[in-house]
Amino acid sequence: MIIVLKPGTSKEDCDRILDQIAATGLKPLYLPGTERTVLGAIGDERVLAGLHLEGNPHVETVTPILSPYKLVSRELHPHDTVVPLGPGARIGSDRFVVVAGPCAVESREQLDATAERVKEAGASVLRGGAFKPRTSPYSFQGLGRDGLALLSEVGRRRGLPVVTEVVDVSDLDAVVEHADMIQVGARNMQNFRLLQAVGQCPRPVLLKRGPAATVTDLLMAAEYVVAEGNPNVVLCERGIRTFETATRNTLDLSAVPFVKQRSHLPILVDPSHGTGIRDLVTPMALAAAACGADGLIVEVHENPEVALSDGKQSLFPEQFAALMAALRPFVEAGGRHL
Amino acid sequence: MIIVLKPGTSKEDCDRILDQIAATGLKPLYLPGTERTVLGAIGDERVLAGLHLEGNPHVETVTPILSPYKLVSRELHPHDTVVPLGPGARIGSDRFVVVAGPCAVESREQLDATAERVKEAGASVLRGGAFKPRTSPYSFQGLGRDGLALLSEVGRRRGLPVVTEVVDVSDLDAVVEHADMIQVGARNMQNFRLLQAVGQCPRPVLLKRGPAATVTDLLMAAEYVVAEGNPNVVLCERGIRTFETATRNTLDLSAVPFVKQRSHLPILVDPSHGTGIRDLVTPMALAAAACGADGLIVEVHENPEVALSDGKQSLFPEQFAALMAALRPFVEAGGRHL
Amino acid sequence: MIIVLKPGTSKEDCDRILDQIAATGLKPLYLPGTERTVLGAIGDERVLAGLHLEGNPHVETVTPILSPYKLVSRELHPHDTVVPLGPGARIGSDRFVVVAGPCAVESREQLDATAERVKEAGASVLRGGAFKPRTSPYSFQGLGRDGLALLSEVGRRRGLPVVTEVVDVSDLDAVVEHADMIQVGARNMQNFRLLQAVGQCPRPVLLKRGPAATVTDLLMAAEYVVAEGNPNVVLCERGIRTFETATRNTLDLSAVPFVKQRSHLPILVDPSHGTGIRDLVTPMALAAAACGADGLIVEVHENPEVALSDGKQSLFPEQFAALMAALRPFVEAGGRHL
Amino acid sequence: MIIVLKPGTSKEDCDRILDQIAATGLKPLYLPGTERTVLGAIGDERVLAGLHLEGNPHVETVTPILSPYKLVSRELHPHDTVVPLGPGARIGSDRFVVVAGPCAVESREQLDATAERVKEAGASVLRGGAFKPRTSPYSFQGLGRDGLALLSEVGRRRGLPVVTEVVDVSDLDAVVEHADMIQVGARNMQNFRLLQAVGQCPRPVLLKRGPAATVTDLLMAAEYVVAEGNPNVVLCERGIRTFETATRNTLDLSAVPFVKQRSHLPILVDPSHGTGIRDLVTPMALAAAACGADGLIVEVHENPEVALSDGKQSLFPEQFAALMAALRPFVEAGGRHL
Repeated sequence: MIIVLKPGTSKEDCDRILDQIAATGLKPLYLPGTERTVLGAIGDERVLAGLHLEGNPHVETVTPILSPYKLVSRELHPHDTVVPLGPGARIGSDRFVVVAGPCAVESREQLDATAERVKEAGASVLRGGAFKPRTSPYSFQGLGRDGLALLSEVGRRRGLPVVTEVVDVSDLDAVVEHADMIQVGARNMQNFRLLQAVGQCPRPVLLKRGPAATVTDLLMAAEYVVAEGNPNVVLCERGIRTFETATRNTLDLSAVPFVKQRSHLPILVDPSHGTGIRDLVTPMALAAAACGADGLIVEVHENPEVALSDGKQSLFPEQFAALMAALRPFVEAGGRHL
Repeated sequence: MIIVLKPGTSKEDCDRILDQIAATGLKPLYLPGTERTVLGAIGDERVLAGLHLEGNPHVETVTPILSPYKLVSRELHPHDTVVPLGPGARIGSDRFVVVAGPCAVESREQLDATAERVKEAGASVLRGGAFKPRTSPYSFQGLGRDGLALLSEVGRRRGLPVVTEVVDVSDLDAVVEHADMIQVGARNMQNFRLLQAVGQCPRPVLLKRGPAATVTDLLMAAEYVVAEGNPNVVLCERGIRTFETATRNTLDLSAVPFVKQRSHLPILVDPSHGTGIRDLVTPMALAAAACGADGLIVEVHENPEVALSDGKQSLFPEQFAALMAALRPFVEAGGRHL
Repeated sequence: MIIVLKPGTSKEDCDRILDQIAATGLKPLYLPGTERTVLGAIGDERVLAGLHLEGNPHVETVTPILSPYKLVSRELHPHDTVVPLGPGARIGSDRFVVVAGPCAVESREQLDATAERVKEAGASVLRGGAFKPRTSPYSFQGLGRDGLALLSEVGRRRGLPVVTEVVDVSDLDAVVEHADMIQVGARNMQNFRLLQAVGQCPRPVLLKRGPAATVTDLLMAAEYVVAEGNPNVVLCERGIRTFETATRNTLDLSAVPFVKQRSHLPILVDPSHGTGIRDLVTPMALAAAACGADGLIVEVHENPEVALSDGKQSLFPEQFAALMAALRPFVEAGGRHL
Repeated sequence: MIIVLKPGTSKEDCDRILDQIAATGLKPLYLPGTERTVLGAIGDERVLAGLHLEGNPHVETVTPILSPYKLVSRELHPHDTVVPLGPGARIGSDRFVVVAGPCAVESREQLDATAERVKEAGASVLRGGAFKPRTSPYSFQGLGRDGLALLSEVGRRRGLPVVTEVVDVSDLDAVVEHADMIQVGARNMQNFRLLQAVGQCPRPVLLKRGPAATVTDLLMAAEYVVAEGNPNVVLCERGIRTFETATRNTLDLSAVPFVKQRSHLPILVDPSHGTGIRDLVTPMALAAAACGADGLIVEVHENPEVALSDGKQSLFPEQFAALMAALRPFVEAGGRHL
């Protein structure tokens, strides 16, 4: 429920209503504005009926939140969320943000060489996986905590905030120590315990859409994070699983405007996993900028031919530089800058 | 097979090889160029082995066409096909073409009012269905031949070439008489008899991707048309059927660069059927321009609230005008013009 | 609408109501029963409100048909439809019917040898394609009308009614002449003109589910046929297109009980196309019998290794005989016989 | 690799080869048989080439394992795995096993009443969720550890082994303490850390197929568990996510024979989640028995109308009893017993 209070309602009266809401088991929200104070009551809205808040003399209107997600919905929070990511890097503003780097951290040399090239080309965040979820137990699983340390070291040296995936709650402290943003991967999008744990973290969360998740499922997953107290969620469209086998996944770009119209959270697009084919990454990156995405996350490897994972979809550094050059007019056509 | 002849091969020697190819049951192709003459042999390539063409003194190289589609493949025909559509309208050139109009022709007034508005806003082709394939036998099925006559009348009056769907071979003559381009709809994409029939028509064909068709299936369907002698095929991505229910279909924009890299045929995007939601049409239209589509086909209705079909996804005329204005910088960023 | 008349309503009063229904543009139905007469009014039910039939003194109740399909729905027609297929062969009764034969008619010898073997093993209907819809224009397209003639000749010789696919309205007369049941294939399930044409035919129709069709779409397609006057429609579940690539399609057996609960039409299962893998045909055939299908359609080839189409999914004759033997206890467990 | 030793190879020679395999980093397997001893080498098979085992005088043949999964493949392990589940209950034998119970443990009364009824009707394992993964953070999340205690108490009282889901590694000890089999749910099928953790547990694992997982993905997930040392994995087909909205998921029964032909692990079918519709549970249960499943897992609730989750798909106790009665002839037709 969204409860708009009458002008001039005292903080005491306001607190009394918040206490009433809390007593029903719903989560009370206090959202002061310049003209009006708005309260929220999040949870099963039927229990609120008993309070008869519409009869309270300080209450102007009581409106249900129609969408199944509440905290992440524009109904409750009409303005765009801008997620801070360290000095100068923010996601969701009028700057289009490009996150780039290798699929996996393989070595200091590989990571540093790649970081240097993506920074030069204009990337503002470095990606790199230390814990790699792999379909086969016999595939390279990442360098683990050593990879985390390399990532933060290289990020600091190159002046790039870093994002990396967490695959289990038990690694979360280590990831928080080394990363500026924590990625929850597609396969864990409905690992609700992990969502709750990152919801209690002091780091922004990059939440990737699962291969069988609807956009509503994605927003519900974000709701899990925000409901735990972490408002800094960045969504990521990275393709869904369909019958089409020409591409690794089917990149569902219509999810971008759909989400932007219904939620205040920023959303990135991952054209690397979304297509799985190097030659499709740039055109889909341009399309992402055109349909309103807040940025990109792109796999780039110093030498994709020897990459330990995802080589086929990783850009060569010079291709990434070309992508950045091609991107600029599209970003500007969309009223943003790089 | 692609057979490149040595420079200076006489037309007689060339014909002799074409006759040999024809005698195997394969379809011979004669593709003269400024420097070299290239021949094609289309069909089951194994039968060609018996000819030992690589030993022919006039033959420089014999290369198999690796893709399952042959005539529509860039391997055989590296340059873009530009489909002529009447004076001034061509699809596949550096002009980004916008086809617009109502889902169905409902009346002279409705069609003419819509045509006037889309022409003003910059559309260069008028769409309108006379034969409507509908899921329910109890839904409006279109005005039939009366609709065709209205469409050509309004198109002439407003100076717009027209495109309309044919749903059965028996209507083809009437459609050819009234339309400048013939649409084969998504549900008929693998109606091979209809494909063969439009392949013998003196009109360009707009071939929409079926809801369960891979991009390879789409190119194979185009091959049916071209194999009958009609080279003027325009492909159309209009969304595939997936588990996502937020949108009517899942618009697979990655099909656009995938097709452009493998085929010389132009491709349009239909963001109206691709999303089914009016508010998503414009962002996906911009994305289509960004990822390299040759144009759009958009549903616009003078008054979508009373439309007899597809009202929910049809733009109001002023929304279409806004789309055209928003589109310009993205089209120009892609190196084309409107 | 379902209009139940009071006992003793005269035929004259009944006709007067039918005329009123017809005058609204709805399709009137006369469904006399042993105790009560029931009338139907099919089409956009809103126009019926103006008649105020519930106030007519001969009318007991007026109930809307809630499903989007009307004539094929159990709401209107609670008893199972049994489709006659020539002497002794009926689909939808307590006999579980097995249709078997090659994907395509290739020659008299191939067809006759296969027919002999499937008849021996207990099949009661012969299948065989004369017009083959193929993804590639360079694949074997069937023997056409020669194939039809061979099919009816062999069917007569072996005492088996025959079913074959029609792919275009222009071939329908020839197919009617030679076949006992007319198949509308998966790719033509929403070729509405073809549905209307077979709806005017004096032959039962086997309607296969399209690869992107929901079960509701399938029932709406059947409604097209029945609305034209042909009540003898047999549905067929043959798999839908999903992300799973282990099998050619994903056989959706839950469609069988779903359809049986909502429609009075019989339904067969095609485990050959449903799986695309010979070794999965028998287990899925048993499962089809268990979940309530009225029969099977199975591809069998005298020698699948040289089959011109679908060899990988065709059973060897001895495998088909084993399938029939394995099937019997499952059919009997379901309260039917072979 | 599968390494077959010559008859009469001594244990010492055998150990020497196992040591050589281990030294390459591959996982050595010792599989003694009555006639021959077979060794396995699991992991990236290319490193084995350097050993030139085919030249070893004690080695008869060296054969690569072609499938991407190794330990769970029939190539390595041709005989069916039978998973022990406490006295008298085994999965994968000639007894068809039925697991039944409520979606969630709601109270002692609810669980005990349901357990009594399913036991009476012939179920041999009790299911009940204590930790419930829910799409919305505002839905009932299960009773947690209290639910585990209730489950084991009721299981003991009613003489039924119990299975329950674990959703996070941190709960695993508690689940192991109370449950006889540990379920890894569909949304966690590729939570590889959880798979590794249950792979080190002294309990059988019920591994449910993810909604976007191919059968190969499912077998790879099982490989993660077995590779950690736990051979007792029971697979479960519970439906995949497709465009069909008539059912909650599309139950892919063809996965059952596909898996049985390629893997030695047993597989259950969950017709409750597979369809999401109470009236489809029984027909799909019968079909599961017919196509070779080793058993079922079915949701039953003492009173589905007041169930806190999945009420729509839960059977009433009397419906479950009817299902068990209907099941018997189909199970027996398949050569098993209940």
